[in-house]
Amino acid sequence: MPRFAFSISATDGAARRGAIAMERGTIRTPAFMPVGTAATVKAMKPEGVRGSGADILLGNTYHLMLRPGAERVARLGGLHRFMGWERPILTDSGGYQVMSLGELTKKSEEGVRFKSHLDGSLHMLTPERSIEVQRLLGADIVMAFDECTPFPATPEQAESSMLRSMRWAKRSREAFDGGEEHAGRAALFGIQQGSMIEALRRRSSDALIEIGFDGYAVGGLAVGEGHEAMCGVLDFAAAMLPAERPRYLMGVGKPDDIVEAVRRGIDMFDCVLPTRSGRTGQAFTLDGPINIRNARFAEDRDPLEPGCPCPTCTTYERAYVHHLVRSGEILGAMLMTEHNLWFYQRLMQGLREAIGERRFAAHSAEFLTRYRSSLRRRP
Amino acid sequence: MPRFAFSISATDGAARRGAIAMERGTIRTPAFMPVGTAATVKAMKPEGVRGSGADILLGNTYHLMLRPGAERVARLGGLHRFMGWERPILTDSGGYQVMSLGELTKKSEEGVRFKSHLDGSLHMLTPERSIEVQRLLGADIVMAFDECTPFPATPEQAESSMLRSMRWAKRSREAFDGGEEHAGRAALFGIQQGSMIEALRRRSSDALIEIGFDGYAVGGLAVGEGHEAMCGVLDFAAAMLPAERPRYLMGVGKPDDIVEAVRRGIDMFDCVLPTRSGRTGQAFTLDGPINIRNARFAEDRDPLEPGCPCPTCTTYERAYVHHLVRSGEILGAMLMTEHNLWFYQRLMQGLREAIGERRFAAHSAEFLTRYRSSLRRRP
Repeated sequence: MPRFAFSISATDGAARRGAIAMERGTIRTPAFMPVGTAATVKAMKPEGVRGSGADILLGNTYHLMLRPGAERVARLGGLHRFMGWERPILTDSGGYQVMSLGELTKKSEEGVRFKSHLDGSLHMLTPERSIEVQRLLGADIVMAFDECTPFPATPEQAESSMLRSMRWAKRSREAFDGGEEHAGRAALFGIQQGSMIEALRRRSSDALIEIGFDGYAVGGLAVGEGHEAMCGVLDFAAAMLPAERPRYLMGVGKPDDIVEAVRRGIDMFDCVLPTRSGRTGQAFTLDGPINIRNARFAEDRDPLEPGCPCPTCTTYERAYVHHLVRSGEILGAMLMTEHNLWFYQRLMQGLREAIGERRFAAHSAEFLTRYRSSLRRRP
Repeated sequence: MPRFAFSISATDGAARRGAIAMERGTIRTPAFMPVGTAATVKAMKPEGVRGSGADILLGNTYHLMLRPGAERVARLGGLHRFMGWERPILTDSGGYQVMSLGELTKKSEEGVRFKSHLDGSLHMLTPERSIEVQRLLGADIVMAFDECTPFPATPEQAESSMLRSMRWAKRSREAFDGGEEHAGRAALFGIQQGSMIEALRRRSSDALIEIGFDGYAVGGLAVGEGHEAMCGVLDFAAAMLPAERPRYLMGVGKPDDIVEAVRRGIDMFDCVLPTRSGRTGQAFTLDGPINIRNARFAEDRDPLEPGCPCPTCTTYERAYVHHLVRSGEILGAMLMTEHNLWFYQRLMQGLREAIGERRFAAHSAEFLTRYRSSLRRRP
C-alpha cells in the first residue's frame, strides 16, 4: 500500500468523489470522520463505528496528551492498539482546543502555554510538540499546529493570526520531516486560515502550497459565523486549495453544512454532532432531527428513522429509545449514537453515489428540501 | 415446548445441575440472572447479554410500573418485544423495592401504598396488582408478592411478617390463576420467609407447598446478615423446599455466596453486583475482584482477567479500561459490565460442569481458595 495516495474517481461540478489509500486502509471521500476524543467514540465499540461505515476516526491531541498522556500511549503501542481501531486515525493539532481554554492559556510566537482543565497542571503546545504528540499517538494523518482565528475578527487580527499560523505551518512541516517514523508512514495536512476575507484565504493557501502538504484543511470556520457565511467563504476558499489533494473542512458539521461543502469541493469532515447530540436525545433523520425525549414518542412504534438499516432502527422502536433516554440509561446513548453515526455515513454514501452518477444537484436538492422542510414544520 | 418443566440431570451432595424448559427457551441451572431494572441490563445490548451465556433476565416490577408503566409496556407488545430480549424473563414482585422506600410507604394487610421516587405520585401495590403488573409486562416467571422481613427482626416481627407473606402468597396464587393468559404460559414462584429462624422457615415452606408453586424462592437473605449467617440459614432453609422444583435465592450475590448456596441446593440467582460494580470500576477475576481505577493498572498490558474469553479481555488491555473508567467514558462501563457478566456466567458454567462430573467439592474448594486468598492479600 502507498503511504498516502488520493485519487478522484468522479466529479460533478466542484464536488468530487474519490479515495485516499493509506497503509491502514482506504478512506472513501467525501468522508465523515467520527470524533474519538478520549481514545473512544463515546458510547461505541470500535466494531460498531466500523459497522456504521466509517473509514477513519479523529482523535484529539489536547485530550489525549493530558489523559492518558502521549508518551504513555506510545509505550502502550500507540493509539490504534490502545483503543482497538486498526484503520486510519487523523489527529488534530490540539491548537483549537487549547485556545478555547480562554484565560487558562498564554499565547506567544513560540506556542501556547496552558493549564490542564483536568488538574491545573502546566503544559506547552508548540508546532514541534504538537507534531511530537501526534507521532507518539501514532496518527496516520497529522495536522499542522495552527491558530483558529476567533470570530469575529478585525482584518488586522485576521491577518496577523493567519500569518502566525503560516509560520507555525512551516515549523510543523520541519518538525514532521525531522521525525524518521512519520516521514515514512504518516501524512501531514496544512490548515488554511484568513477568517472571512478572500484575500487572506488566498495568501494563506499560497503559503501552504509553497510549504507543501499531503492534504489541506479549511480552518477557522464553524466558529459561529453561521451556515450562509460559511458557504460564502467556501465559495472561494475551497478552490484555492490544490485540486489533486484532499480538502478537509474542520469541525463541520450539520448535515446541510456538509452537503453544501461537498458541493464546493470539500472531501473530509469531522464533527461531534452525531455523537454528542445522540447522547442528549437528538436523532438525525431524512425528515430532519427529532428529539426522542419528546412525549409524542412515548408509544411510537416506528424505528427512530423509518427505513434506516442501522442496528438500532432494525431492532427497537422509538418508544423504547424514548424510555431509555428519559431514564438516563447508558443503552439510550449507545443506540442513539449508533443510529446517528449510521445516518452520517449514509449521508456521505449518498453524496458519493450522486457524484459518481453526476446527479449531485438533484440529489442534494431533494435531500435538503426534505431535511429542511421538516425543520420549518417544527420550530 | 412445555410451559414449565424442571429436570435435574445430576446431583453432587445437595448441589444440583438441571434445566428449566419454557416456551421462550431453556434455563440451565444453577443459573445466574442478570438484572435488567429499567428494561435494559445497564450498558449492554441484549445480544451482548446473551453472548455472555445468560438464559434469562430479571426485570423489576417496581421500576417498570413507574416508568414506562406496565399498561404502556403491554400496549407496546410486552417487555420482551420492547427491549429486544426473546428469552425468558423473571420479574420480581416489586415488594422488596417498595418497602425499601422507607417513609414513602404505608403498609397494611391490603398491600403497600407508596410514593414514586421519580415524581412523588401515589401508587398501591397489592398481591393482585403485582400479579397484574407482571402479567402486563409479559413475564415468564412471576414472583408472588411478599414482604422481605427486615434484618434484624425479633422473633415476633419475623413471625408476623412471614405470616403476612404467606397470606399474600395465597392471594398471589389466586390472582395468577384468575388470569387466563398467565395460567397458560407463565410460571409462578412462591417466596419463603422467616428471617434467620429455622422453625419459621419450616412453617413458611409448608404454607407455600400447601398452596403449590412452580418454583420456590428463599427470600429475606442478603439483607445485611453476612455470608456466614446466610450460609447458616441455607443449611436448613433450602432443603425444606421441594427437591423437584427449582429453588431461587433472591438478590444473591457475591461469587462466594453463590458457590456456597449452590452447595446447599440453590438453582437460581440474581444480583446487580456484576453490572453495578462494573460501572464503578470493579472487575471480577478468578483471583478476586480488582478495582481498575487503581493507578497500578495505568500501563498494565494484561487483559482485565488473563485467560478470560470475553470480548473485553480478548480485545483490550487493563491500561485502556483504566483510562476509560477514570475518564468517565461510557465505553468503560460497557466493557467492564460485559466482562463481569461473562465472569458470572463462567462461574455458573463451572459449577454446572463440576456437579455433572461429581467434583463439586474439589472444584468449589479450588475456586474459593484462589478467589479469597487474593482478597486477603489486598486488604
